Amino acid sequence: MAHVGIVDDEGRPIVIPMAYGRAGDRLYLHGLPASRLLRALASGADACVTVTHVDGLVLAKSTFHHSINYRSVVILGKGRLVRDRRAKLEALRVITEHLVPGRSVDARGPSARELKGTYVVEIALDECSAKVRSGPPSDDPDDAGIPAWTGVIPLALEAGRPVPSSDLPVPAYASRYRRPGRSRTTG
Amino acid sequence: MAHVGIVDDEGRPIVIPMAYGRAGDRLYLHGLPASRLLRALASGADACVTVTHVDGLVLAKSTFHHSINYRSVVILGKGRLVRDRRAKLEALRVITEHLVPGRSVDARGPSARELKGTYVVEIALDECSAKVRSGPPSDDPDDAGIPAWTGVIPLALEAGRPVPSSDLPVPAYASRYRRPGRSRTTG
Repeated sequence: MAHVGIVDDEGRPIVIPMAYGRAGDRLYLHGLPASRLLRALASGADACVTVTHVDGLVLAKSTFHHSINYRSVVILGKGRLVRDRRAKLEALRVITEHLVPGRSVDARGPSARELKGTYVVEIALDECSAKVRSGPPSDDPDDAGIPAWTGVIPLALEAGRPVPSSDLPVPAYASRYRRPGRSRTTG
Repeated sequence: MAHVGIVDDEGRPIVIPMAYGRAGDRLYLHGLPASRLLRALASGADACVTVTHVDGLVLAKSTFHHSINYRSVVILGKGRLVRDRRAKLEALRVITEHLVPGRSVDARGPSARELKGTYVVEIALDECSAKVRSGPPSDDPDDAGIPAWTGVIPLALEAGRPVPSSDLPVPAYASRYRRPGRSRTTG
């Protein structure tokens, strides 16, 4: 998921979690036209889209040097409403595939009414910055004698056993789900 | 982790991932005084702090009804720099304990110099809104015949085996780490 920030009518920041998809140098967001956030994005407001993967807790000798291993990207841009029917369908497919690769083939695609009832917003990936922290803690040499364990507790978003709502066989993309783009950090 | 939004000097939103801690009706953030975000928060700028726990992917018959199970809270407020030494130490302890319960007892606390080199900002939990989506997909009755599997793929941030940097025995809080406040969603 991404965290999407906009500035509201009173000049205050608002940050909302959203699903997203990416195709090349374009990021796609979607939602109901009734959503204030979607309307702001659709009208070309400045937006900041931040995606963070937490990889681990870094325990150092001193609390000061405690840290978090993570990968994050901060994207600055303006939203643009996708109106073209084919481009909109493709953007929605990209969002679905980003969440569950393989799913868009099985599920029913949007009806004309559903498509009308969905805003799709595109943000160009022109201004992005990535940050990564990885590896072990870095301790002050003076702290070597402190009897506190140091190291990394790896963290990763893991999938559990699918909870079915239907009697159909569980497809491979659900039973062997792997978060897209994630590197193994456990073990 | 939280995603913290502020409005920059040019009126654009900026969203940055940050560790946080909470004590009662106060949320605490910390960082280097050199950080533009910390300086903005310390000067009382409007902030939005959003915390999201992703619990699962919800697969419906139609892509339109696909969803994400999650719990999120959006906090609106203004930062206030914590200057009092005792309050600052306590806030840092709260942040450490939030990340790794039990850790603040073992690790060395901040030196006078480290304390001076850290900004702690407090945000009152006065204006918060929580959102939760849970449970199975909700399908249109007309879609019952579509041969796509439906259900939920549970997701949870799970801890892996600790990666030690020292020969000391692994403490219980590292080897049996559980993300604080998380309900079991797998299984």
